[in-house]
Amino acid sequence: MSDQKRIYLDYAATTPTDPEVIRTMEPYFYQSFGNPSSPHAVGRGSKKAVEEARGILADFIEARSEEVVFTSGGTESNNHAIMGAVRSLKARGNHIIVSKIEHHSVLEPVLYLEKEGFEITFLEVDSSGRVDPDDVKRVITDKTILIAVMHASNEIGTIQPVEAIGRIASERKIHFHVDGVQSVGHIPVSVSKIGCTTLSLAAHKFYGPPGVGALYIRRGARMANYLLGGDQERGRRASTENVPGIVGLGKAVALCGIRMAPEIQDQNFLRDRLIQEVPARIGDCFLNGHPTQRLPNNSHFSFVAIVGESLLMSLDMAGIAASMGSACTAGALKPSHVLKALGLSDELALGSLRISIGRWTKKEEIDYFLDQLPGIVNRLRLARA
Amino acid sequence: MSDQKRIYLDYAATTPTDPEVIRTMEPYFYQSFGNPSSPHAVGRGSKKAVEEARGILADFIEARSEEVVFTSGGTESNNHAIMGAVRSLKARGNHIIVSKIEHHSVLEPVLYLEKEGFEITFLEVDSSGRVDPDDVKRVITDKTILIAVMHASNEIGTIQPVEAIGRIASERKIHFHVDGVQSVGHIPVSVSKIGCTTLSLAAHKFYGPPGVGALYIRRGARMANYLLGGDQERGRRASTENVPGIVGLGKAVALCGIRMAPEIQDQNFLRDRLIQEVPARIGDCFLNGHPTQRLPNNSHFSFVAIVGESLLMSLDMAGIAASMGSACTAGALKPSHVLKALGLSDELALGSLRISIGRWTKKEEIDYFLDQLPGIVNRLRLARA
Repeated sequence: MSDQKRIYLDYAATTPTDPEVIRTMEPYFYQSFGNPSSPHAVGRGSKKAVEEARGILADFIEARSEEVVFTSGGTESNNHAIMGAVRSLKARGNHIIVSKIEHHSVLEPVLYLEKEGFEITFLEVDSSGRVDPDDVKRVITDKTILIAVMHASNEIGTIQPVEAIGRIASERKIHFHVDGVQSVGHIPVSVSKIGCTTLSLAAHKFYGPPGVGALYIRRGARMANYLLGGDQERGRRASTENVPGIVGLGKAVALCGIRMAPEIQDQNFLRDRLIQEVPARIGDCFLNGHPTQRLPNNSHFSFVAIVGESLLMSLDMAGIAASMGSACTAGALKPSHVLKALGLSDELALGSLRISIGRWTKKEEIDYFLDQLPGIVNRLRLARA
Repeated sequence: MSDQKRIYLDYAATTPTDPEVIRTMEPYFYQSFGNPSSPHAVGRGSKKAVEEARGILADFIEARSEEVVFTSGGTESNNHAIMGAVRSLKARGNHIIVSKIEHHSVLEPVLYLEKEGFEITFLEVDSSGRVDPDDVKRVITDKTILIAVMHASNEIGTIQPVEAIGRIASERKIHFHVDGVQSVGHIPVSVSKIGCTTLSLAAHKFYGPPGVGALYIRRGARMANYLLGGDQERGRRASTENVPGIVGLGKAVALCGIRMAPEIQDQNFLRDRLIQEVPARIGDCFLNGHPTQRLPNNSHFSFVAIVGESLLMSLDMAGIAASMGSACTAGALKPSHVLKALGLSDELALGSLRISIGRWTKKEEIDYFLDQLPGIVNRLRLARA
């Protein structure tokens, strides 16, 4: 293998921006760059482009245009949903239900609220990482104002029964937030089928640019603002709009509209090959997450007697970029809260590997990875023994 | 004049992104696109680019690299500064001092805090829009935890005596936040000379891309986080970094480092021509803001018997993009809080025009504007009479 060879198997951390998306964004930096709030022609051109992107995204997730608020990304969308819902609903109650395996951008606001006096129920998951909707039903009280369960796990790829939870939340008229950051653009996402009140997404997870995302807010939902100041986004989110970013998000969504179905097929094939071959070629290796109810791009393994960081470093030296799980906490050397929630030992949680594939992953790259991995794991185990 | 002719005199609302900045950003969308939190080679490349941009910005504002936190823009930076300071300092007191003419992204969080029980002192300004540092000194109490005064007004361009206020805040060990969104890149900004605790800025105001900004946080300052989740930005701001945006901000700063001094000269010349000629050519027209202590790119006028929106529409039809004041509230038809704080009548506040120039403004464009304006104002006044 040449020094130049780089195999990127970390699409779940971030995707490259599709070159077609970049081309679509470019005129909005310099030629058509106006502030959409400005009433003159330059501003109106930007406003129109923003509204077109909003319409594309709304159609894609089966929402109405006016239910889409553009944000700076998944973290802001999740923070906005949690803090905004709670601030507007706190007179009704102080109880919040979240799964144990939510992303930190959901968990951290909830932990902040816990310190402020809110009561939090953390839902257990089964060994495949699934929430049981009956558990949700069981823990709801008269004081419950918010339920948050992610659509698909950023670490282990498990897809949650969000429609079933949506029906329960809907019956009890409780705000249901769904973190869709890992699912939008990768599997079909319909806010009307899910029945959620809010849903978050981030463009850089589906071949759009970084620094832009959106929050779906169902019409009529009570929701305080999070970024405070100007009247942008129909008064729901202050800050000058990131016009090229929003245009790029719209284009990325449009491309997913065309490419998602074939990509799901291609990626399911490669993912299933990984799921079959990695444990077949390497002893004491286990798949994490659900065998079938998982994202097409995600496979995730634990290895006995392996330190995940060492495995990543060895793969990196072999030209392969992969991850242990969430990139957002890649600096932290403690076991993932998600893997602990599955019941894994610290050893297996710390000896984990996420292989996430995407639009440009080739079968030969997976073959190369499958050729390299057994030797690397054996060397690391021998060095440790 | 041809239909194609467009004269942009609304640089204070947003600047076009400098083509050199766009070229510098491009590789970070698709070629070097990794998540900076990822430990592999693709991630490390992004991390390095982010840290280079951080160093460039830190040097430019005379801060240390570790004192710079990248954000999604001016609104988030201002919200973060206000809410973060107050959350971490509320045990010490509940009194906040802000000028009456702050941007809405400072005022709205402060008004939110007022509802939560904080006491707010709104500082008056003189007829040129300047805060008197002695007023600051006079209203400080033992309970004061935060002072916020902007560096330069987004509407009227007046530059505040922030160094004098900084000395007062420093003596009393009170958190001093400076909104530098309109000043950075336009006049010299040194956080060490100002002596502020936090300072906010936004790339799209100085020829960088929209959707990215920064918050300077002085080393050792007590400051809660605002976006909650992952450990990015040394644990101070969650959210996957907007790498191309941050790289673009860095390049925009680097260009300002070279171009700002000559641009100040050029713009002062054009601005002073506007300040002299507009009231000379049009009766019942007044300059707003300070005659000399003002941003090089800003001139701002009020006209008797003119509705600002009609003036903007007529200018737009003549191919000239201008503004009444803040683009962030362009939808609102009530008089600007800034102009009211200067003591203007509703009529003069609603009959206002901001002409903000920039890197690509030509003398001929100012001449064309000066030729067009008197006829437009006369026609509008006649139609009203």
